[in-house]
Amino acid sequence: MFSERLTARTLEHRTRLCLGLDPRFEFYPDFAQLRAHTLEVLEVCAPFIACVKPQLAFFEALGLEGFTLLAELVGVAKALELPVILDAKRGDIGSTAEAYAAAWLSGDNAGCALTVNPYLGFETLTPFVKAARANGGAIFVLVKTSNPGSADLQDLELENGNSIGNTVAEKVALELARLSAEEPGPLSSVGAVVGATHPAQLEHFRTLMPRSPLLLPGLGAQGAALESLAPAFFPNGTGAVVSASRGIQYADSLNVEAARAAALGFRDALNTLF
Amino acid sequence: MFSERLTARTLEHRTRLCLGLDPRFEFYPDFAQLRAHTLEVLEVCAPFIACVKPQLAFFEALGLEGFTLLAELVGVAKALELPVILDAKRGDIGSTAEAYAAAWLSGDNAGCALTVNPYLGFETLTPFVKAARANGGAIFVLVKTSNPGSADLQDLELENGNSIGNTVAEKVALELARLSAEEPGPLSSVGAVVGATHPAQLEHFRTLMPRSPLLLPGLGAQGAALESLAPAFFPNGTGAVVSASRGIQYADSLNVEAARAAALGFRDALNTLF
Repeated sequence: MFSERLTARTLEHRTRLCLGLDPRFEFYPDFAQLRAHTLEVLEVCAPFIACVKPQLAFFEALGLEGFTLLAELVGVAKALELPVILDAKRGDIGSTAEAYAAAWLSGDNAGCALTVNPYLGFETLTPFVKAARANGGAIFVLVKTSNPGSADLQDLELENGNSIGNTVAEKVALELARLSAEEPGPLSSVGAVVGATHPAQLEHFRTLMPRSPLLLPGLGAQGAALESLAPAFFPNGTGAVVSASRGIQYADSLNVEAARAAALGFRDALNTLF
Repeated sequence: MFSERLTARTLEHRTRLCLGLDPRFEFYPDFAQLRAHTLEVLEVCAPFIACVKPQLAFFEALGLEGFTLLAELVGVAKALELPVILDAKRGDIGSTAEAYAAAWLSGDNAGCALTVNPYLGFETLTPFVKAARANGGAIFVLVKTSNPGSADLQDLELENGNSIGNTVAEKVALELARLSAEEPGPLSSVGAVVGATHPAQLEHFRTLMPRSPLLLPGLGAQGAALESLAPAFFPNGTGAVVSASRGIQYADSLNVEAARAAALGFRDALNTLF
């Protein structure tokens, strides 16, 4: 399953880094160069990363070529034995959620993880959880995101709340903990996105979700402080990954060697925590 | 702009019906028949509908052929002068939201509307609002969805709430009203999704968002009561559309004549309200 593969890779390759791939068309003269550069960045960074996270928005913005490239990229990652997190933030009700789960957690994408938005309610997570469990994949549900405006809804304090379920984000966290408890093993297939730009909250959310793999975005361009990330991890340095995107892929314009050096640097920096 | 086209079509064609298209692969022997049937349903229903709402999940589940079909469908709808709501429920931060907005509110999709998920915070709506305004499109932000579990987060009561901003959904509604007030005209480009299966709340949300076009899903298969929809509309029967999907496209298996009859029936039923 996804979490076990992530843990194994973290320990074997000694890395907690997730490579975010955001192929931005405006940075390239044409699609061929976007494709070549994106795949090359993945290849040179592979030895230093625990997993790869393509951001679907940038592939969608490319139209059909983008979806073709995404499929190619998933294939390359699988050949490199790299776990893949499809950062799509999907969410919908009933049979529509089933269709999204079929699209991104089954078939050619079986074994991948998918980011999921919980706003439509907890029952809407079920088709994603089922598909992830059935295919050895995972989901990472948005709990607390890394942007400043995440406070607007996620931090709202609830009437009738209590010390462990006092905000909207905490309500979501408790539901993910409940779903995780349905599975055996130290890490479930029901993970969470917790913004690394909110370090004070990381320990709290780890306590609320003791068995969820955590995806911490926000390293590099989004500016999370390294030392504040430690509470998200288990003592052996597993249980979470930290993603960086622009700070690697475009570390120095389109220089692939700079991307490789940036990935190596982030990996080593994260390893100083353990 | 989108809202004006929707209002004009409602008045000229006397219809408040939004045709949801959910092409489900399991209902067809092959893709060619899925494509032909979906386009045929659109064509025969066109005279009776105010707009069309392709559900992106079902197109994504078809892979590349699905995206090709979606582009074709948008082209057909434009040729028929039908406003298009791309039901994608996208949402992300910063430049990622910009990429989604570029994908679905610009270029070939300029003038379309897009459904948007607000969980990541109000600032994340900005790129969608900007792209919608720049291209004569619109967004429909999830406020209160039609599924039973929508209460999990959307109905949570807030500690420091007040009579008009007491729940998470109401907080979102007030932000959409604020954005709508930035625009001239009776209807803005910042609409809302309000589940028609919660009729008691419709009047309240219409009051909170006096200038947002409302998308009311849930007619037919999801079982909203017709008479309870009236408060969502302006007195002249504009300002909202009601969507039905399965209940039209698959009214009687793949019978296109039954789909046409169902659309006609829903249109007439909605018109009895005015």
